[in-house]
Amino acid sequence: MERTVRQLANLVAGSFTGDGDAVVTGVSSVDQATDGAIVFADTKRAFDRALASAAAAIVAPVACTTPDRPVIHVNNPKLAFARIVADLAPATPIARVIHPAAIIDESAAVGAGVAVGAWSTIGPDCVIGDQTTIGNGCSIGARVRIGRECTIRANVTIHERVSIADRVIVHSGAVIGSDGFGFVFDAGQFHKFPQIGDVIIEDDVEIGANTTIDRGALDSTVIGSGTKIDNLVQIAHNVRIGRNCVIAAQTGISGSATIGDGVMLGGQVGIGDHVRIESGAIAGGQAGILPGKVIRKGTMVWGTPARPMDQFRRNFALVQNLPSLNARVSEIERRLGTNQPSVPDEPTDEHNR
Amino acid sequence: MERTVRQLANLVAGSFTGDGDAVVTGVSSVDQATDGAIVFADTKRAFDRALASAAAAIVAPVACTTPDRPVIHVNNPKLAFARIVADLAPATPIARVIHPAAIIDESAAVGAGVAVGAWSTIGPDCVIGDQTTIGNGCSIGARVRIGRECTIRANVTIHERVSIADRVIVHSGAVIGSDGFGFVFDAGQFHKFPQIGDVIIEDDVEIGANTTIDRGALDSTVIGSGTKIDNLVQIAHNVRIGRNCVIAAQTGISGSATIGDGVMLGGQVGIGDHVRIESGAIAGGQAGILPGKVIRKGTMVWGTPARPMDQFRRNFALVQNLPSLNARVSEIERRLGTNQPSVPDEPTDEHNR
Amino acid sequence: MERTVRQLANLVAGSFTGDGDAVVTGVSSVDQATDGAIVFADTKRAFDRALASAAAAIVAPVACTTPDRPVIHVNNPKLAFARIVADLAPATPIARVIHPAAIIDESAAVGAGVAVGAWSTIGPDCVIGDQTTIGNGCSIGARVRIGRECTIRANVTIHERVSIADRVIVHSGAVIGSDGFGFVFDAGQFHKFPQIGDVIIEDDVEIGANTTIDRGALDSTVIGSGTKIDNLVQIAHNVRIGRNCVIAAQTGISGSATIGDGVMLGGQVGIGDHVRIESGAIAGGQAGILPGKVIRKGTMVWGTPARPMDQFRRNFALVQNLPSLNARVSEIERRLGTNQPSVPDEPTDEHNR
Repeated sequence: MERTVRQLANLVAGSFTGDGDAVVTGVSSVDQATDGAIVFADTKRAFDRALASAAAAIVAPVACTTPDRPVIHVNNPKLAFARIVADLAPATPIARVIHPAAIIDESAAVGAGVAVGAWSTIGPDCVIGDQTTIGNGCSIGARVRIGRECTIRANVTIHERVSIADRVIVHSGAVIGSDGFGFVFDAGQFHKFPQIGDVIIEDDVEIGANTTIDRGALDSTVIGSGTKIDNLVQIAHNVRIGRNCVIAAQTGISGSATIGDGVMLGGQVGIGDHVRIESGAIAGGQAGILPGKVIRKGTMVWGTPARPMDQFRRNFALVQNLPSLNARVSEIERRLGTNQPSVPDEPTDEHNR
Repeated sequence: MERTVRQLANLVAGSFTGDGDAVVTGVSSVDQATDGAIVFADTKRAFDRALASAAAAIVAPVACTTPDRPVIHVNNPKLAFARIVADLAPATPIARVIHPAAIIDESAAVGAGVAVGAWSTIGPDCVIGDQTTIGNGCSIGARVRIGRECTIRANVTIHERVSIADRVIVHSGAVIGSDGFGFVFDAGQFHKFPQIGDVIIEDDVEIGANTTIDRGALDSTVIGSGTKIDNLVQIAHNVRIGRNCVIAAQTGISGSATIGDGVMLGGQVGIGDHVRIESGAIAGGQAGILPGKVIRKGTMVWGTPARPMDQFRRNFALVQNLPSLNARVSEIERRLGTNQPSVPDEPTDEHNR
Repeated sequence: MERTVRQLANLVAGSFTGDGDAVVTGVSSVDQATDGAIVFADTKRAFDRALASAAAAIVAPVACTTPDRPVIHVNNPKLAFARIVADLAPATPIARVIHPAAIIDESAAVGAGVAVGAWSTIGPDCVIGDQTTIGNGCSIGARVRIGRECTIRANVTIHERVSIADRVIVHSGAVIGSDGFGFVFDAGQFHKFPQIGDVIIEDDVEIGANTTIDRGALDSTVIGSGTKIDNLVQIAHNVRIGRNCVIAAQTGISGSATIGDGVMLGGQVGIGDHVRIESGAIAGGQAGILPGKVIRKGTMVWGTPARPMDQFRRNFALVQNLPSLNARVSEIERRLGTNQPSVPDEPTDEHNR
């Protein structure tokens, strides 16, 4: 496949400088760029690195110009590049067929152009929307609804009554609709509390590989439209997540937590039960938010227990500075003629073996 | 399905106040309660919320009474409610059949009323107890023993020689009996140490989705009866866990750790190898317990490295108070006529970019 | 199966003391040793425990001798023991057959002695090397290359164009080649950035159960030869890991991080994007390394944000010592006749509920 710089500039509604007839034959990262490849640069620094590469053309901000290379100028080079990749290096189309080794219950309603892989099962009363793709080895329980143009990769488990809207992507090994973790302790043992709710996943959500999303106990677990969830994330029963959130890998969200719109959670964040995180808030990687806490709109927190970022950084700096503070206090004591044992510079074995 | 308040009170061996003939047609959370629904309230506050809902009846402690609504009085409302849910909203019964697309080795002994889903395999010399359910796409290796009335959900992997007792629930994507992580370094490379032990899971254990439990290297990894394990938990080789423990999501337990009875581990807790956690101990979320440490009976710890909770809280408060302590020291220095550079209020870029 | 001490000493190229004709019938841990079992001891303390057991013979360092038991003397007892286990307790051989219920695309090139389990699929243009074993329920996408003598356990997903070299072990539930987590925000929503790179896994790598390894966005995600990865680890797009690294369970490595040779990462470590960890460095369990940071060759770090170990320990000790430092300052103030409110010994509810 090949395109001219002019064609690609038109494709992304951008302008170009340099030779509009220059031919682009592929896409690449700046690091790996070879002759014929187009690359993108979203900063001046990246642009300079791109110029040092063999790239045939560069997608860059309007401010980045050069006499030596064709440049396609756009406001959002990364987004424009994504569109160019879709044009120049399209994904291999998937045959819109249902594999003979898939088992689809006769009561299921399967839309037009649905693809289902080998060794998959679709249960009674499911509804699968048009152009949706289901990979190999998926288990889809009874009364599941999946919308249009969804992609369910291989070995995904979707349990009964889960509802998934349109253009949702679920990566391999994800489990949606597993029982929540709820028990009643009585007479010396734990009794299972019913987990009979469901899961509602809205449009354009992406769910990472081996991520788990539990059904509500009595109500619903909800993932709002446009929210992106990375791999190995745990979302517990009755959690409600808003729109356009970003949740990085290995983060865990405990039962009944509510998360607003546009919230960003770093990797390995832990969120206690009944936490409320308001829209636009950010939690840094490995932050721990205690049960019942509220994180206010637009605030950024870090640490365990989580603190406002500036407070965390200030206190962290003060801890780094403790040797100096200790020395200052010792000096004062010396001047006042008191004596104090100096602090050990190591935790004791008891405390830190 | 419908029941009268009187029938439900009898079912849970409770008393009732108000109209015993009032009809209940379903179960609900307080938040979603509609006409005809019964809800539970385990506190006075929850009871008041329930009264503000449309619920037809409320399961509540003896102390909670009202003239305006039928109330079923029990000592443990949540437990009683769980029983009412099982009666009013029973799970759809699973057909007690072996799917024709399941492969069961002829040497396997499969009990009465066993259900096996499509695309599952049961290996040589397995023994599966009566009324056990195995979902779609499960791989069960050779010489696995599974007891009575177990539920193995879809896409579970159980490797050779794993032993599972009665009424165990294993959620989708869980892997039981994978090799432990053991290597010997020699001549510049790692050599695999044999992982030929097994896994023993006792009665009434629940294992969460995508949780991994490694087999012992030479001996057994053991999960004691009644212990409940959430999603995405890692349990390494030779770990021994006692009875009725609760282990929240994404916690990791390293090799040869031993955990007593009734231990509670919060989410994302990390436990080093050869740790011993005595019965009744509690580790707060994200706590990190260093290799070889002992957590004494009934103690509660938090932080990394883990500390007794009161010590953690005291030290945490003192760190929050460092700005004031610094100011006090500066004031003393001022009065003594010394000079000290003030502490930076931010980590340097080198330390905290 | 039985062997004499003399035979086993020859097998591991060791010397022996005591009765060379003593018969060994099995292998065991010291804890479970029964008559006839051989055990290993790599320390004097372990050797004394072994002597207190019923073990028939002991593999031990040259320095460990006893008149009462046959001892096989070697430099690396654990390694020698691993070889003895392979001899005395060999794994059940797997039938080198392709199960009739496996689907292998006719364009795939499958080597000699390859075993493929039931309900597995191997896609178009795959190449599978000789003597490689693929378990039940695996989904292997188009153009995947797997080398010789690899073991892919049950329910593994390997997506298109992943390349795996020789003697690689992939445990159940692992997902290799899933999309990286990359989006461009524009006009109020996230747009998927192409994830069209691949994954390259070199010789002798081991990948744990339910671990996820994302493909590069435009380039490759690379795992160097001899590197061992535990369960539930997340490796993001474009990560490059060197040779002979050890990565413990539940650790997460963010996009474009580069890791040298012989790096050790404890459990639940979090590594930010574009981090560079140089060869021989070590990160303690739950350490958090911030985006863009560099960890120098051979250094050991701990904590979040990660610090050199000695600095972490010193600061940790100073925090433990804060009550004493506060008391010293209060005493100074008392002597100087000032008054200060004493520090609260608990975080406030607002900060630590």
